[in-house]
Amino acid sequence: MSALTDGDAYRGQALGEIHEAALALPNDGKVADYIPALATVDKARCGIAFATLDGEVHAAGDADIAFSIQSISKVFGLVLAMQRMGDGLWERVGMEPSGLPFNSIVQLEWEHGIPRNPFINAGAILVADTLVSHFSSSRLAFRSFVRRLAGSERCDVNDVVLASETRHGSRNAALAHLMKSFGNIEAEVEDVLAHYFFQCSLEMSCRELASSLLFLANRGVHPISDEHVITPRDAHRVNAILSTSGMYDQSGQFAFSVGLPAKSGVGGGIVAVVPGQGVISAWSPALNQHGNSTRALSMITGLAGRLGLSIF
Amino acid sequence: MSALTDGDAYRGQALGEIHEAALALPNDGKVADYIPALATVDKARCGIAFATLDGEVHAAGDADIAFSIQSISKVFGLVLAMQRMGDGLWERVGMEPSGLPFNSIVQLEWEHGIPRNPFINAGAILVADTLVSHFSSSRLAFRSFVRRLAGSERCDVNDVVLASETRHGSRNAALAHLMKSFGNIEAEVEDVLAHYFFQCSLEMSCRELASSLLFLANRGVHPISDEHVITPRDAHRVNAILSTSGMYDQSGQFAFSVGLPAKSGVGGGIVAVVPGQGVISAWSPALNQHGNSTRALSMITGLAGRLGLSIF
Amino acid sequence: MSALTDGDAYRGQALGEIHEAALALPNDGKVADYIPALATVDKARCGIAFATLDGEVHAAGDADIAFSIQSISKVFGLVLAMQRMGDGLWERVGMEPSGLPFNSIVQLEWEHGIPRNPFINAGAILVADTLVSHFSSSRLAFRSFVRRLAGSERCDVNDVVLASETRHGSRNAALAHLMKSFGNIEAEVEDVLAHYFFQCSLEMSCRELASSLLFLANRGVHPISDEHVITPRDAHRVNAILSTSGMYDQSGQFAFSVGLPAKSGVGGGIVAVVPGQGVISAWSPALNQHGNSTRALSMITGLAGRLGLSIF
Amino acid sequence: MSALTDGDAYRGQALGEIHEAALALPNDGKVADYIPALATVDKARCGIAFATLDGEVHAAGDADIAFSIQSISKVFGLVLAMQRMGDGLWERVGMEPSGLPFNSIVQLEWEHGIPRNPFINAGAILVADTLVSHFSSSRLAFRSFVRRLAGSERCDVNDVVLASETRHGSRNAALAHLMKSFGNIEAEVEDVLAHYFFQCSLEMSCRELASSLLFLANRGVHPISDEHVITPRDAHRVNAILSTSGMYDQSGQFAFSVGLPAKSGVGGGIVAVVPGQGVISAWSPALNQHGNSTRALSMITGLAGRLGLSIF
Repeated sequence: MSALTDGDAYRGQALGEIHEAALALPNDGKVADYIPALATVDKARCGIAFATLDGEVHAAGDADIAFSIQSISKVFGLVLAMQRMGDGLWERVGMEPSGLPFNSIVQLEWEHGIPRNPFINAGAILVADTLVSHFSSSRLAFRSFVRRLAGSERCDVNDVVLASETRHGSRNAALAHLMKSFGNIEAEVEDVLAHYFFQCSLEMSCRELASSLLFLANRGVHPISDEHVITPRDAHRVNAILSTSGMYDQSGQFAFSVGLPAKSGVGGGIVAVVPGQGVISAWSPALNQHGNSTRALSMITGLAGRLGLSIF
Repeated sequence: MSALTDGDAYRGQALGEIHEAALALPNDGKVADYIPALATVDKARCGIAFATLDGEVHAAGDADIAFSIQSISKVFGLVLAMQRMGDGLWERVGMEPSGLPFNSIVQLEWEHGIPRNPFINAGAILVADTLVSHFSSSRLAFRSFVRRLAGSERCDVNDVVLASETRHGSRNAALAHLMKSFGNIEAEVEDVLAHYFFQCSLEMSCRELASSLLFLANRGVHPISDEHVITPRDAHRVNAILSTSGMYDQSGQFAFSVGLPAKSGVGGGIVAVVPGQGVISAWSPALNQHGNSTRALSMITGLAGRLGLSIF
Repeated sequence: MSALTDGDAYRGQALGEIHEAALALPNDGKVADYIPALATVDKARCGIAFATLDGEVHAAGDADIAFSIQSISKVFGLVLAMQRMGDGLWERVGMEPSGLPFNSIVQLEWEHGIPRNPFINAGAILVADTLVSHFSSSRLAFRSFVRRLAGSERCDVNDVVLASETRHGSRNAALAHLMKSFGNIEAEVEDVLAHYFFQCSLEMSCRELASSLLFLANRGVHPISDEHVITPRDAHRVNAILSTSGMYDQSGQFAFSVGLPAKSGVGGGIVAVVPGQGVISAWSPALNQHGNSTRALSMITGLAGRLGLSIF
Repeated sequence: MSALTDGDAYRGQALGEIHEAALALPNDGKVADYIPALATVDKARCGIAFATLDGEVHAAGDADIAFSIQSISKVFGLVLAMQRMGDGLWERVGMEPSGLPFNSIVQLEWEHGIPRNPFINAGAILVADTLVSHFSSSRLAFRSFVRRLAGSERCDVNDVVLASETRHGSRNAALAHLMKSFGNIEAEVEDVLAHYFFQCSLEMSCRELASSLLFLANRGVHPISDEHVITPRDAHRVNAILSTSGMYDQSGQFAFSVGLPAKSGVGGGIVAVVPGQGVISAWSPALNQHGNSTRALSMITGLAGRLGLSIF
């Protein structure tokens, strides 16, 4: 029996036990309700998947149920924009941690319409603007990109969530109009928001998410399709921004206690990149006060600790 | 000839060439002058050292000249406080990136006297308060700690710099009094500032700095003395905070372009931890607009790129 | 010859001399250009009118040329809303000075979508929302109200300015969407902004403006039509808010140096209420860095000083 | 019987009835406790005095009991500094409303150490710096000035309050050190704070306060002593700043509902200037959430409404 198989077996067992432990935790967080359609999700759902560079996917619990990826879509958006725009992107969006809640408009005004980084809402809307301006249909292009990475045609938008996002999108509209007033949005605000709400409303499973982002753990090359998604340098850069800014205003604490580049969404999902090894994705809908899934956080923290995955 | 020796030889050669390249750069930054005593340093100085876990130290240029470590002292202060206070420390100081310049008083007021992290000035003053309260002579304890880690009795305070810090310390006094008003400073403000200015005024060389911090690249154990300085978990934590918050408001950009936990000081020094390999320290007095040494930044960026040191 | 006639003669002479003096000043301010249509106005225009409670209007210079009233329309909007909404209005907008530039979005977020006062942009947009919700056609109602007060059917919107306002209204759109996200806008944002841009695009002359606002100097009763526009208490209240917040971030300085309730607009107009005596209106397009007309400011300051009009 | 006597009788009766009505109100505010010595005052105390330009003082309740004037001392400080410094004062302190709580350090940093106005703490500390720099003993000079204006040698400092202010003065120390860091404090911070705490700890009665400030209602001339305290222009200016900034972050609401230049202190006192008529002073220790005395506010609001005193 090879060491690799041993490692695989150990990972699989660890995943199962950590999933068990998470189910035993009190599930007292709150399902996101700022968008009514999100509040209807079953709070008891809980799944985890760990896709490794050798093509294996270890999974436990509800790892095949598709959920609303929400802000995790910002990672796909950024990568797609980096592919197409090159370094010009970084003149319109920063790469520094924000130090303020993820949808704060204050900092955007202070910094004259340049969002701090691509993972706060303003930054992701800015990225959406570049996609809308670049593609004839940015929404179709985005969905194709995600499906290709995930190796699954199943990934699609939830129309009820999309309608709900649009109806309750006033704060994002405020961010977009403010950037427009500073000249940092090129397309029509309505089109940019339509794209942004579309990508937030995509649904994917833990297994699909973990597989789709493997290129970030492999210097930009997707290990299954061998597609060169981005350069090694850009893969490092995405991981760097995920490390400082991927977990809302709990990013520092996550680096402190887990030590992996990661991104969370208010749908309850979290993805974490383990450079050189693979990608973990966990999901459970109930959120803590920072907007991060309580149980997904607990599972990833547990797994990283047990397998010694910290990059630091 | 072993692979290790080869690696060593390669490192040494890389270091020399990168140092040459830095000397060829225009040296148009500005030496720190907010403290008059710092402004007298020779702007042409430039050195770099890379201490590895096997005990080797590769060096080029002015690697043995002692300079004012300034904010790099915050790393030693944090480690000493973690040793003595345990997790109670994190109730009085946060671990999130600040998103604002390093000595901003605004955020401190918003967050009711709890500094964002131990590497902004307010956070380091808070850490100084815990040291002053813990040790009968926190200044002597601090200096002994640094000397032991560096394996050198030479490390000492520059009295001219210390006097200058004290005379021009109004902003730090404002931060300390504001924390005191929120009940987050225990000792007398005068004593806390005296300690803080003392540690900022210490002088060390690149070689001494790199050697002294090797335990951060070695899971908390100093590889030369075998001293268990902090736990592996705490070593990860220090590196995590260095990654998100060590380079003032250029921390995100440094993670993006270099990808190493690092700390800079306005004396022109930078230290960068390479987990599992060693510690780099570079120094050159002229600073960019973020307060980071232009040439030290350039040398570390070059070395990390050439040797593929990014943790991401 | 009665004292009153003497007073009138003196006022008329003072007005003429002060107008002369203003023309002799260097006219080096900048005509508003954030809306392109405003930038085409002749910078050399300069007029002043002083309407008194006895029905006289003293005038000098271009006092009969209609100009874009811009933010002066906020006074009419507030009065119309006070008429219709009663004290309920003050649950949705504050009455405190803002301490920040007139279109700042920062304070609006801090204070959860409740604008500081009705004379900053956010506050005037909030007032517009109440009018849109109250009237079947708030724009016609607004124009009728202004025409009746001015005793002139001439007052109308400049369509070029209106189109320009709408095209360059991103920042106001951001303010409106942000208030909507806090639940403090009832109507559709598009309708609210359409009303707001409409009222800003109205054109009136100094003579018309001064006459129309006489009720504020007369405890709520218009002295010419005898219409009870608002209660004495509400007239005091409007004057109070004008005193603390009517001149953008120069309000304190205007109280300090002139001492009259006043409102300015970026079209170059200023109106000032002299309780118990009348209303002054001055106009000249070039603005200082606070967005107030340099020459209008100079004429009103001169007149108030010469006639001893300060309320303090 | 002359009209004046009638007016006097009417005022006296109004004062008595309004004082009665205030006593009937629930007294559920909170006595200031940020300084322990202030928290010991009898919450049931309640007095009011109205000094008129003819030398009469109408009074009701505890109008002769001395209380801690606290921030009301800022008025005396400003007047004394205007006497000595002339217009140079306004290069070091502004005249705009602050829009933020009275001891906020945020705005001070944004505006590079120039306080918004002389009635927020930072502004009053700045004024104290000018007095310390001007007088050989600024504290004695200040006390003499107040005694002369009040026509009473009784006014003196409460030593217990002074000691308590000093011990709990961290926030004011932070403000002073921050201004020092911007170069806007000339004297030693310790000396400036010693003066500031001294003037805040003075005790005066309603009768003494109302009499001492009569010059502000009389174009700068004290009507009893005939002393020309300041120029008419400077008297207007002080009243203007009192109008926009005298009642902490309730200044706009006070202008809105009362319409008089006024200053409050956390000792529970309020003074209000009635230009051309006199000065009202009311006192009761329990404070609302803005730091203004509930009953004093109620009495002055009632009296101004009943006698029609609004300046607007």
